Amino acid sequence: MNYRLMLRTLGRTLQLEGLCLFLPALVALGYREDPRPFLYTIACVLLLGTPLSRLGCRPDFFTREGFVVVGLIWLVLSFFGALPFWFSGEFASFADCIFEIVSGFTTTGASVLTEIESLPRGILFWRSFSSWVGGVGVLIFTLAFLPKVGGRTQVLVQAESTGPVSSKLVPKTAQSSKVVYLIYFGLTLTELLALLLAGMPLYDAVVTTFATVCTGGFSVMNASVAAYGLPVCEIIITIFMLLGSLNFAVFFLIFTRRGRQVLGSDELRFFLGTVSAAVLLVFLSIYPSYGHAGRALLDSAFQVSSVISTTGFATVNYDTWPTLARCVLILVMFIGGCAGSTAGGLKCSRVLLLSRCAQRSLSRVLHPRAVKVVKLDGKAVDEDTLSTLSAFFTLFFLTMGAVTLVVSLDGFSITTTFSAALTCLSNVGPGLDMVGPAGNFAAFSTLSKLVLSFAMLVGRLEIFPILILLNPATWRRS
Amino acid sequence: MNYRLMLRTLGRTLQLEGLCLFLPALVALGYREDPRPFLYTIACVLLLGTPLSRLGCRPDFFTREGFVVVGLIWLVLSFFGALPFWFSGEFASFADCIFEIVSGFTTTGASVLTEIESLPRGILFWRSFSSWVGGVGVLIFTLAFLPKVGGRTQVLVQAESTGPVSSKLVPKTAQSSKVVYLIYFGLTLTELLALLLAGMPLYDAVVTTFATVCTGGFSVMNASVAAYGLPVCEIIITIFMLLGSLNFAVFFLIFTRRGRQVLGSDELRFFLGTVSAAVLLVFLSIYPSYGHAGRALLDSAFQVSSVISTTGFATVNYDTWPTLARCVLILVMFIGGCAGSTAGGLKCSRVLLLSRCAQRSLSRVLHPRAVKVVKLDGKAVDEDTLSTLSAFFTLFFLTMGAVTLVVSLDGFSITTTFSAALTCLSNVGPGLDMVGPAGNFAAFSTLSKLVLSFAMLVGRLEIFPILILLNPATWRRS
Repeated sequence: MNYRLMLRTLGRTLQLEGLCLFLPALVALGYREDPRPFLYTIACVLLLGTPLSRLGCRPDFFTREGFVVVGLIWLVLSFFGALPFWFSGEFASFADCIFEIVSGFTTTGASVLTEIESLPRGILFWRSFSSWVGGVGVLIFTLAFLPKVGGRTQVLVQAESTGPVSSKLVPKTAQSSKVVYLIYFGLTLTELLALLLAGMPLYDAVVTTFATVCTGGFSVMNASVAAYGLPVCEIIITIFMLLGSLNFAVFFLIFTRRGRQVLGSDELRFFLGTVSAAVLLVFLSIYPSYGHAGRALLDSAFQVSSVISTTGFATVNYDTWPTLARCVLILVMFIGGCAGSTAGGLKCSRVLLLSRCAQRSLSRVLHPRAVKVVKLDGKAVDEDTLSTLSAFFTLFFLTMGAVTLVVSLDGFSITTTFSAALTCLSNVGPGLDMVGPAGNFAAFSTLSKLVLSFAMLVGRLEIFPILILLNPATWRRS
Repeated sequence: MNYRLMLRTLGRTLQLEGLCLFLPALVALGYREDPRPFLYTIACVLLLGTPLSRLGCRPDFFTREGFVVVGLIWLVLSFFGALPFWFSGEFASFADCIFEIVSGFTTTGASVLTEIESLPRGILFWRSFSSWVGGVGVLIFTLAFLPKVGGRTQVLVQAESTGPVSSKLVPKTAQSSKVVYLIYFGLTLTELLALLLAGMPLYDAVVTTFATVCTGGFSVMNASVAAYGLPVCEIIITIFMLLGSLNFAVFFLIFTRRGRQVLGSDELRFFLGTVSAAVLLVFLSIYPSYGHAGRALLDSAFQVSSVISTTGFATVNYDTWPTLARCVLILVMFIGGCAGSTAGGLKCSRVLLLSRCAQRSLSRVLHPRAVKVVKLDGKAVDEDTLSTLSAFFTLFFLTMGAVTLVVSLDGFSITTTFSAALTCLSNVGPGLDMVGPAGNFAAFSTLSKLVLSFAMLVGRLEIFPILILLNPATWRRS
């Protein structure tokens, strides 16, 4: 292990976090709130990060270090990112602060807060901004960082960003990072303008935009997006939640006038097909109790988009909906958005490839001697990638089972327990019952909050990095 | 497709069903009940089965025919097996009769009956006996039938009966069938004697034994095994439920004085480890509310064994237990018993192999160039088997999702809906909430009952045969 290089990378990340913290500090000053929670934290991260960032080291960096450092970055960022919450005195415990910031950085949007609106605006800004920053981190992680570490991780990236184009958007990693930043900033600015034009106040429009484009879902209102009572805003947010869960390569292709290639994407068609089917089922399920078709359709589209994009905004308490609608939402929580986006869940390309593998096994029974390859976008997917995919699927369910067991110690309902584990692992945010859109995670024990934070990190980093970090074999000298 | 041979096989199976039906007819006569429901059915199956069984045909039989005919056998047996229930007039609808008999033949043990004890003894005998017959069918299917059809199905059998010995117990298929019969009869007689010695009445001992050794779980008492109030019987049943969920090769090895090989079985150790861990967790969860350690331990052991063996007997309404205990039971419902047994669920060997595949993918990240094989009992498992396993896992969850969606139309709670789908697909019987040990499946709609019956069949036949039966490609001329 190249510990010095790992420490230096952590140091640089802390410096970046310090820079990010200036923004909420300015917001706090602007609203004449106490900026000290941010200033203290900035002092901490810079004092620790600056010397670390100057460590001299060998430049060699292998796969193992790559995975370990990605896991550590998210852990360290979360620890220090929780400090402003802790210094503000608005949170009941440090575990609550950790849960809230992990929920932010992982773009989950689950909250331990029972009352949001009374919190200082600077703190709420940091909460929403952290998820926006986390969204950038995820995109860089999935699209630019993993190909860099090379080797076997390439397999992960293939499984990850099997969109219309191969793993890299443009040949050079640095360039593709820039493209990703541009698209992300572009989406952010467009949504912000749209929400302002639709009549949302500036501060609310900014934080809502932050929480939408990263598919996070933190709101500064207790009633989430429903609080604004602006259907136009709900339509805008629906569109941007869906855009945020598309493979970013789609935007790149449209941007470079290769829109035709987009139409050939199996994942995109699967995603849009799933969204349409889910909206239709939810609409049919809730329409009888609504009576008003337009409102029922908007609520169906908003909630399905919110859950499949793993954002987690709410315009209605869907926990009161009929069982069919709730089951549809639970099932799309498993699926999630497209690979190469900020959405969580299993991801559409994985679900699609797993289904095709299953289909192949079924047809092998009929034609035992036929050699069949599994294809995506017309290209054969190699067997190693498929075996990694299958491992991902297994680890997803094993993690979910383990998290469920720990959370079940708290003694809440089965629906609360299972949906809390699922919504955290899939980075959605709200679940059902106690953790439904009208509820929150406040009542869980410290142990459950920490384990659910762990689930959010595991889900966010595509399972492998965090498990590798915890694997004793990783730390043995080779 | 060799339709004539398929029809002849169905005809012979119907004749066998006719023979089986004489037993409940005799029981009905013995208790001075109306034997006509059975006699009418016997007339039907013999009139249809005898001419079919005499059809002349070519003897060639390929994989495809094998899978199709296995699926058809279970469907046809269920249809005619439901007739005595229908003729008896004790069931509300024909869908109820179908649900109850499918639950029997698939050794599930889920029931639509709200009041059991008032039913004629002949009918209840047929209900329990059907699950005992289904148990034989499953054993023959997994251990003897599949290797016969050859080709790709061998893969299934490998995945299926990866116990201490390879797929066949003794070289010749006919011989291995005999060994299976002997073990099954041996277990049945031993349990029957034990229950009689423990003081259970003869009729109850017979039907309880039928329902235990096949890991079915039908009881003739409304309160299931709790009704007898005999802790000794509960201990005996616990032991036989566990024995029924072991790979039958284990008994064969012990029988032929090769008991040492049994100790080397990875699956057996995994199964016993899982049972022990689950009993411990459930015990720790329920002990505080029990106070009495012995009773808490017996109830923990009984319920865990009942659920992991996918039997479904109850000595207590575990739906009132703390969340931890209920979550443990839900998780072991997924796992199920060992391959090559009458238990359902994913099966221990599959869960073990999937975990090892996941472990391999994790260690591949650390050592990208190392070639690692996945082993079971020290032997390498080939990649085709692993890919079929992964397909099995995917299809299990896809089926569960689809069944959940249909059942959710009935509007019962999320816990009821999900646990009904799971308990039927895993062939357990009871679930949680409305379908918990104190509940039943009576309130579901006809559609849900048929779809849950379908789930029981899919789970019972290891998913592939029923899906192949429904696949249009199967029926195309090749």
